[in-house]
Amino acid sequence: MSEADFAVPLTDRYFEDYLAGAVYEYGYASVTADEIVEFARRFDPQPMHVDPDWAATGPFGGLIASGWHTAGLFMRLYADHYLSRVASLASPGIDELRWPSPMRPGEKLWIRTTITATRRSRSKPDRGLVHTHGEMFAGDDRLVLSLTALNFLKTRHAG
Amino acid sequence: MSEADFAVPLTDRYFEDYLAGAVYEYGYASVTADEIVEFARRFDPQPMHVDPDWAATGPFGGLIASGWHTAGLFMRLYADHYLSRVASLASPGIDELRWPSPMRPGEKLWIRTTITATRRSRSKPDRGLVHTHGEMFAGDDRLVLSLTALNFLKTRHAG
Repeated sequence: MSEADFAVPLTDRYFEDYLAGAVYEYGYASVTADEIVEFARRFDPQPMHVDPDWAATGPFGGLIASGWHTAGLFMRLYADHYLSRVASLASPGIDELRWPSPMRPGEKLWIRTTITATRRSRSKPDRGLVHTHGEMFAGDDRLVLSLTALNFLKTRHAG
Repeated sequence: MSEADFAVPLTDRYFEDYLAGAVYEYGYASVTADEIVEFARRFDPQPMHVDPDWAATGPFGGLIASGWHTAGLFMRLYADHYLSRVASLASPGIDELRWPSPMRPGEKLWIRTTITATRRSRSKPDRGLVHTHGEMFAGDDRLVLSLTALNFLKTRHAG
């Protein structure tokens, strides 16, 4: 993983610190088989996610996490390392959420964030919108999730 | 909520049963404040989601769920009522996930699914791709989530 990071910590990070073109990488996280089953029982009770025996004979040859669980793990790394603790206002949404391969128990997960665009609000100059292309990998380089996140962030200096 | 539903149950529902233009509504689900905090501690530990005292004085005037928790509740209703139990293969992804307003503790949630397009695979005629516009509402009509889901489903009759 790259060692590049913001010049400022999460507790002093504002809209102005998110620069288009910057690429950062953060890790690690992982899930157990029990966690995969527990999450899926609550939110996505399909047999490939809740029934290890069925999953062993299913199309993926073993238990795989709900895509929403995969997204949750991405969010955790994103919140722990990338998203400001003091300036994050809200996210209006996510574009092009993709699960190109499944997340399995015990895999070592890490994320890459690429800032693709930033725009200060004209109507509310105390904030701006940051577009981030996010990727999560299992192991060295197997992509398990990609998305484009939209985040409103407070500016350090208004106007 | 509309009473319209598929002519066939979840256990006998295949690609051919998903018809473009069909609109169905299903409910209900809800979350408690404790569930919101528990989910967010694990996946999205921002103060608006994990700290009720902070949240009470924050921009939303109270605790709100992580958008990923909102998505999880949508998925639960989608899996319990809409997605075939026998023909669902996998989802390649989600487009235009939006959170137009926050999900709060105790709200009565329901979903509307609108089938926007269906296409049988040319290379693998035992399956097809269904595009579903999904919406989740709190109370009578406050939209808390919208998305377009992509789902691969097995066909009842191959070729």
